[in-house]
Amino acid sequence: MKKIVLALVLFSLLAPCAYAQKKETKAVLNNIHQRKSVRTYSDKKVPDEIVTELLKAAMAAPTGMNIQPWYFVVLRDTSQYDRIFAGNGNMKKFKESSVVIVLCADTTVTRPPRENPNAPAVTSPNAIWRDDMGACTENLLLAAEAYGLGACWTACYPFARTMEPVKRELGLPANVVPYCVVPIGYPRLDEKPKDKWKPEKIHYGRW
Amino acid sequence: MKKIVLALVLFSLLAPCAYAQKKETKAVLNNIHQRKSVRTYSDKKVPDEIVTELLKAAMAAPTGMNIQPWYFVVLRDTSQYDRIFAGNGNMKKFKESSVVIVLCADTTVTRPPRENPNAPAVTSPNAIWRDDMGACTENLLLAAEAYGLGACWTACYPFARTMEPVKRELGLPANVVPYCVVPIGYPRLDEKPKDKWKPEKIHYGRW
Repeated sequence: MKKIVLALVLFSLLAPCAYAQKKETKAVLNNIHQRKSVRTYSDKKVPDEIVTELLKAAMAAPTGMNIQPWYFVVLRDTSQYDRIFAGNGNMKKFKESSVVIVLCADTTVTRPPRENPNAPAVTSPNAIWRDDMGACTENLLLAAEAYGLGACWTACYPFARTMEPVKRELGLPANVVPYCVVPIGYPRLDEKPKDKWKPEKIHYGRW
Repeated sequence: MKKIVLALVLFSLLAPCAYAQKKETKAVLNNIHQRKSVRTYSDKKVPDEIVTELLKAAMAAPTGMNIQPWYFVVLRDTSQYDRIFAGNGNMKKFKESSVVIVLCADTTVTRPPRENPNAPAVTSPNAIWRDDMGACTENLLLAAEAYGLGACWTACYPFARTMEPVKRELGLPANVVPYCVVPIGYPRLDEKPKDKWKPEKIHYGRW
């Protein structure tokens, strides 16, 4: 009898924890699957505090050798958007966005001094900063989705045509490239995620 | 009076929704901030169904021109790990992992036929498939974190030294490169995420 009571007590204590964990797992996966490119925005402003949370999420991405190559330029002045999105076919839509984040990378980045101030400078070899920036951008987009925001990854690096106007407009230093430009706002339409699941893309053991 | 009742009814209906939304937002952000490189694993097996969920999350990443350059090779046979992690300083630890996923990219990828079977073949220009693979890898790592798993992004592309043994072991076609190798298991130790938040990396309006 005692054992049964004990088991029941344990179950009632642990079941809600397991249930909460499952709900959190589901929330994360659901958010990953709900993320999509959103190109139409309402005129509702994205609060500064949320922009900061998006940037915190971006800076939580993994980086090779913990090199953290990223920098961010936050734009609110729509008069800058003309030059930032120069030549982009979606310019008209992107000009409706409440905030634009330009994700930049220092291509000559060294190990962050906070970790080991005496370490020798390490330059990211073979442009692996590019891989870090991909993960960083995805974190930003996922955080935007979690806040019910719409965002769109627009490529910049390595296309001279898109990079040059951004470099000039933002006054980027020579060692910093604009990696991508992300307009963000509350969605105006109900844009849907694509279903890209293709089990035939998976191999087991060998190709 | 009627208005007050109506307001109360509306509030009681909407408040739980808003609360649930906030909880989901928090779960997503928390998961992003909790993700870390985990290099020590218990001997508990990662179920096949969870591996499939990780791959679904990976395939939900955004890709330039919706090109979906990714392929995945799933390894369970630890005898392969020696060759997959050849020369890696963490080999001994990685050999404890329950499953290894090799993320590959078709560098000559064309638009997926499902979307538009008559569209002309489009090759990913300037290796933008590399950016897609960064986002894809991050999705996989975040999904692993959501399941309480530990994973570690180990670079492969573009280093010949790490790519060659993997290509040989998996028998990859000439147009496919191994992008990165991710060992996954239930964490054995309590490895912690790094705090990489540096507000000084943010600029407003201009550099």
